[in-house]
Amino acid sequence: MSVPVFPGGCAMSRGLLSRGGVVCVLGSALWGAMPMRAQTPSALNVMPLPAKVQVGGGVMKIDTGFSMAFSGDREARLDRAAQRFVVQLERETGMTFPAATAAKDASKATLLVTTDHESKPVQELGEDESYTLDITPAGAKLHAANPLGTLHGLQTFLQLVSVTPDGFAVPAVSIQDQPRFPWRGMLIDSSRHFIPLEVIKRNINGLEAVKMNVFHWHLSDNQGFRVESHKFPKLQENGSDGLYYTQEEIRDLIAYAHDRGVRVVPEFDMPGHSTAWFVGYPELASGKGPYQIDRRWGVFNPAMDPTNERTYKFLNELIGEMAKLFPDQFFHIGGDEVNGKEWDANPNIQAFMAAHEIKNNQGLQAYFSQHVQDLVVKHGKTPVGWDEILVPGVPKTIVIQSWRGADSLAAAAKMGYRGILSNGYYIDLGWSAERHYAVDPMGGAAANLTAEEKERILGGESTMWSEYVDAENIDSRIWPRNAAIAERFWSPQSTTDSTSMYQRMEAESERLEWLGLTHRSFQRKMVQRMAGDAAPAELSSLRTLTEALEPVKDYTREENAAIEPTSQTPLNRVVDAVQPESETPRRFSAGVDQFLAGSCKDAAKASELRAQLAQWAGNDSRLQSLAQRSYLVKEASPASSALSQAAELALNALDRLMQGLPSTEDLKKQQIATLNALELQAHKSQLTLPARAAFQKLIEAATSGSACVNAR
Amino acid sequence: MSVPVFPGGCAMSRGLLSRGGVVCVLGSALWGAMPMRAQTPSALNVMPLPAKVQVGGGVMKIDTGFSMAFSGDREARLDRAAQRFVVQLERETGMTFPAATAAKDASKATLLVTTDHESKPVQELGEDESYTLDITPAGAKLHAANPLGTLHGLQTFLQLVSVTPDGFAVPAVSIQDQPRFPWRGMLIDSSRHFIPLEVIKRNINGLEAVKMNVFHWHLSDNQGFRVESHKFPKLQENGSDGLYYTQEEIRDLIAYAHDRGVRVVPEFDMPGHSTAWFVGYPELASGKGPYQIDRRWGVFNPAMDPTNERTYKFLNELIGEMAKLFPDQFFHIGGDEVNGKEWDANPNIQAFMAAHEIKNNQGLQAYFSQHVQDLVVKHGKTPVGWDEILVPGVPKTIVIQSWRGADSLAAAAKMGYRGILSNGYYIDLGWSAERHYAVDPMGGAAANLTAEEKERILGGESTMWSEYVDAENIDSRIWPRNAAIAERFWSPQSTTDSTSMYQRMEAESERLEWLGLTHRSFQRKMVQRMAGDAAPAELSSLRTLTEALEPVKDYTREENAAIEPTSQTPLNRVVDAVQPESETPRRFSAGVDQFLAGSCKDAAKASELRAQLAQWAGNDSRLQSLAQRSYLVKEASPASSALSQAAELALNALDRLMQGLPSTEDLKKQQIATLNALELQAHKSQLTLPARAAFQKLIEAATSGSACVNAR
Repeated sequence: MSVPVFPGGCAMSRGLLSRGGVVCVLGSALWGAMPMRAQTPSALNVMPLPAKVQVGGGVMKIDTGFSMAFSGDREARLDRAAQRFVVQLERETGMTFPAATAAKDASKATLLVTTDHESKPVQELGEDESYTLDITPAGAKLHAANPLGTLHGLQTFLQLVSVTPDGFAVPAVSIQDQPRFPWRGMLIDSSRHFIPLEVIKRNINGLEAVKMNVFHWHLSDNQGFRVESHKFPKLQENGSDGLYYTQEEIRDLIAYAHDRGVRVVPEFDMPGHSTAWFVGYPELASGKGPYQIDRRWGVFNPAMDPTNERTYKFLNELIGEMAKLFPDQFFHIGGDEVNGKEWDANPNIQAFMAAHEIKNNQGLQAYFSQHVQDLVVKHGKTPVGWDEILVPGVPKTIVIQSWRGADSLAAAAKMGYRGILSNGYYIDLGWSAERHYAVDPMGGAAANLTAEEKERILGGESTMWSEYVDAENIDSRIWPRNAAIAERFWSPQSTTDSTSMYQRMEAESERLEWLGLTHRSFQRKMVQRMAGDAAPAELSSLRTLTEALEPVKDYTREENAAIEPTSQTPLNRVVDAVQPESETPRRFSAGVDQFLAGSCKDAAKASELRAQLAQWAGNDSRLQSLAQRSYLVKEASPASSALSQAAELALNALDRLMQGLPSTEDLKKQQIATLNALELQAHKSQLTLPARAAFQKLIEAATSGSACVNAR
Repeated sequence: MSVPVFPGGCAMSRGLLSRGGVVCVLGSALWGAMPMRAQTPSALNVMPLPAKVQVGGGVMKIDTGFSMAFSGDREARLDRAAQRFVVQLERETGMTFPAATAAKDASKATLLVTTDHESKPVQELGEDESYTLDITPAGAKLHAANPLGTLHGLQTFLQLVSVTPDGFAVPAVSIQDQPRFPWRGMLIDSSRHFIPLEVIKRNINGLEAVKMNVFHWHLSDNQGFRVESHKFPKLQENGSDGLYYTQEEIRDLIAYAHDRGVRVVPEFDMPGHSTAWFVGYPELASGKGPYQIDRRWGVFNPAMDPTNERTYKFLNELIGEMAKLFPDQFFHIGGDEVNGKEWDANPNIQAFMAAHEIKNNQGLQAYFSQHVQDLVVKHGKTPVGWDEILVPGVPKTIVIQSWRGADSLAAAAKMGYRGILSNGYYIDLGWSAERHYAVDPMGGAAANLTAEEKERILGGESTMWSEYVDAENIDSRIWPRNAAIAERFWSPQSTTDSTSMYQRMEAESERLEWLGLTHRSFQRKMVQRMAGDAAPAELSSLRTLTEALEPVKDYTREENAAIEPTSQTPLNRVVDAVQPESETPRRFSAGVDQFLAGSCKDAAKASELRAQLAQWAGNDSRLQSLAQRSYLVKEASPASSALSQAAELALNALDRLMQGLPSTEDLKKQQIATLNALELQAHKSQLTLPARAAFQKLIEAATSGSACVNAR
């Protein structure tokens, strides 16, 4: 039996076109190139790691007498920030602070906050975000040039709070901090699945906590136009299934984000990815219509008609309306993935191209893009778009968002364009935090840019495309991994120790739940739902299973599904409940690495690994009775069986290792082939075995001639 | 060493006066008197159990095509109920139902709801709450006389939803249902700890789910006056630390409750329990003042001056204002626990009593009470008060709420007074659900009343006094146990099988979390907070500990505390995080009973019990490193050590039993004495070992001459 190995999960199909490409570019190559650096890990659970930290002696206690006072600038959002700070401090400690913001004598406040001057009324790219935080046993002082730095410093303080033998406290420390990049963002796609406002809000709480400063809101696509337009109400009325944000809600959200130091950049994707527009306004399209909301995933034919003047008249009015609604300087016009089929099929468009000497669809898109950019500029905004908008002659003012990669971005910078990197930060692909963390906007060709060219690389954005997320599980697809990406954008380039990153990310993960995010707690509820009236032992086996697996990676989900998934397909399955990066197998795999690095001599570690393997190996039999009663559990049966069988193989290898009974080369090959087959079996449930590589390492170590066998 | 046994936790101190008395009245006597009845348990996880259920054949599937339609009465709250119903159905199934409320042809709706006529604009005591629910594989029909029955029927439907091998479904069933008592309430004390409105709201969701129909809102006490008064603003300004509900919020809450079929009965406790009033209006008091908010727990001296006309002038205006704010027919005036010390010390009051031939303080309180009742009646309301307001000559229209007990209530009914029972339903005492469940408003002397007298017993109320609860843990002190009390008030008197009750209560407990209640999820967060940066094994040991313990029962908490607790004492400790009734030890104890009932022959059960005991026995050593780093964990160290030692004793007994090595009578006595000492040791952490009785049973069974030893 011959089964392919899965180095980085490079299987591709329709995912290739739909924001693909990214999948293999950063596959095993970079993975292998990233050594575990021996950088000193920070003992402080702060994330992102500050630019400069000096740890002092002792701690400052946090008790019910805690108070804070403000001096300098007193703009109203600082008062609100103080209130939020106190609420979060109360959650972290379980105490109340009756005098927290009532300190009359500022000099006696536990935490004195000084803000030199106001920030801009509309937050601008490149404003000073630096702050200093000095904590001694006697008190704490936070100082910043403007409220943006103050907001960041308050978050750092909250991250420093920990329980001690004598109560809650923050360590004495001196921090000087500022960001590496001025544009540190996250995209949420509200079109493929509508994401309720409260979910957006709690994720903006998360952005504030990890010092990201841009919320990129993908508001329209084939599956829905999600903004209320007063000028063109059929956009939302016919193009959203009633699921859209009112202008009042958007204004509220923008104010909410502004309070948290987060800019809101809207994206209206054009000329492709726009079927939902055409349901109400078919005259915009290049095809005949009528159009329906397209609830499937992928790249489809409908595209705006770039040759018709009324398209630009419409866009002029809409962009004008939206430019007023969204105060940010930047306005995203999308521009990705036009397949051109509607253009090819429309004789008028073909005639227009011939008349205007437009050679191909790329040229036609450039023509469209230039017109739309002019409209954006006319309404006072700076256009942003995906790689495709960068064509010869486009003005140097535009900003390129690169899904193609760091090299593409570097090339743009060389040509004089500003850019932000998203390739490598596609958090919907289900990669590990470590893999995203290894991607650097200044990596690849960017490393060789001149200082002036480097200035043009503004930062990056993670992207939460929403094919397989809804209000219930979206947090888990964003957090905690997004914190690692936030650190990449904020902390010095030399911050690359992934062991330290994981330690701090897990601490931050817990704190994020106090902010209302549900990336940890959602799983218990989903598991309980799937388990129905399960007995405790059955429920426990389903928990063990979900904590041991991950969803299939990249865009491979449902690729062989009998029924094509849509935005109305329930997301209530095991694949929807498991974490993109599960802590238990990650810890297990790290444990295997340690064990092997120690020449398999650490008996305590072996016993710990053995206990985990035994639990997994025995889990499938405990799950079976439940799988007979719940269709949702039954669907995961192949993966459950694969996990138990794979763990059994690894257990056998570990036992051979410990008993000094090496296996043969033939047996090894056979077992690895079986492991690969089991991985394929798990894919039937859209799941993957994240500890498979660790299992294989144990099998290899237990083979005659391997280092571990020889060491014993 | 001689240590007292703790039959029902009857230790008392200041708790005796402060709503005490209840503690031992229903102690071990009733406990022992309640046999496990052999009633047929319902296979349906419906709670409260309906009056009449007939199970049919097959199921009705719930898929994404689910729809509902309404006929008959269409008052607006039914539309809102439908929306809530769909949201809850979505949570239970993880599906969306795009066509749920859009059915155009009612006859084709999956669920057809017929409501004969409107309910009263202000919900009244005794309105028809009945409904019928008929489900076949082809469809479901819900029918009710008015929206109250409709609301109840929708909740029953939601409880019937379960996961099956083929998807989600409800069983074919025919239900005819109506409540046993018309007054089924729960009290929340918003004074001792302020409870935010959102917390009240989610608990009202819980009341709706278990078909309770009264929210009794204890709004004023020594620790705070929690309602905005426009006429007397110093009540809230000086008497609440800024923590009060505005009139707008209260109107919103009342509308929220009305939507869910829940009446809101306000309580303003007078003439005692009223220190917070006197901070702003010392002239109302019998003492000299000035007064401060009293943040301690207990019964204190301040009381209103019943001899001063301006007291009644004030109350006339305030009651008038509040009678308008709260539309319910009933108005609660408290009346409990006046110690009379301020009256004794005031010469004017003494002179007044002499002049009016008032013999004692009880007489003076009756004088006051009569005046206040007249004011309540004058403003169109029916007075309700605690036992103390029932004195000779008081009009028969008042309603007595009894904290003293069923006999007291029966005596009142004999005298012609209507009453509701709260004795036995004090959920702040930390009793088991089973113990509350065994209390019946028609129990004791009430069983011998005439039919006419029985009519006067309107029902009952659980009471959530808030000394040791706040927004974070209050849900866990109410739920799921309150569901058992709700069943007592709703279901036929013969519904007494506690095994069935526990099975259904646990299923309901999970559903309640979908409604936003946090009685399960809060614990994980609190444990994580106490654990700080714990390693996974440490965190797991703290979870094991918190899941094995309960808070000390009755009013014994902090009775020997060095520092007297107040409303500002943090509630962030292990005692605050453990459940009043923990599932794990309850299941273990039931397992021990089964094992012993089977003459100790069930080896699989023995092995299961052994595994649990081994986990507990080894847990303390795993916890120690964490206890050294977290003061909150350290505080629980005595209880942790007590649990592990006690489990070790039980483990030893189980092993002797299984190996046929009986222990001696002397050893048994010594071990039981040790168990009792360990229980006392746990009390140092304000904790108790709920499995202690089960441990003792194992020890007794392992002793020469016992049934189990002889059976082997």
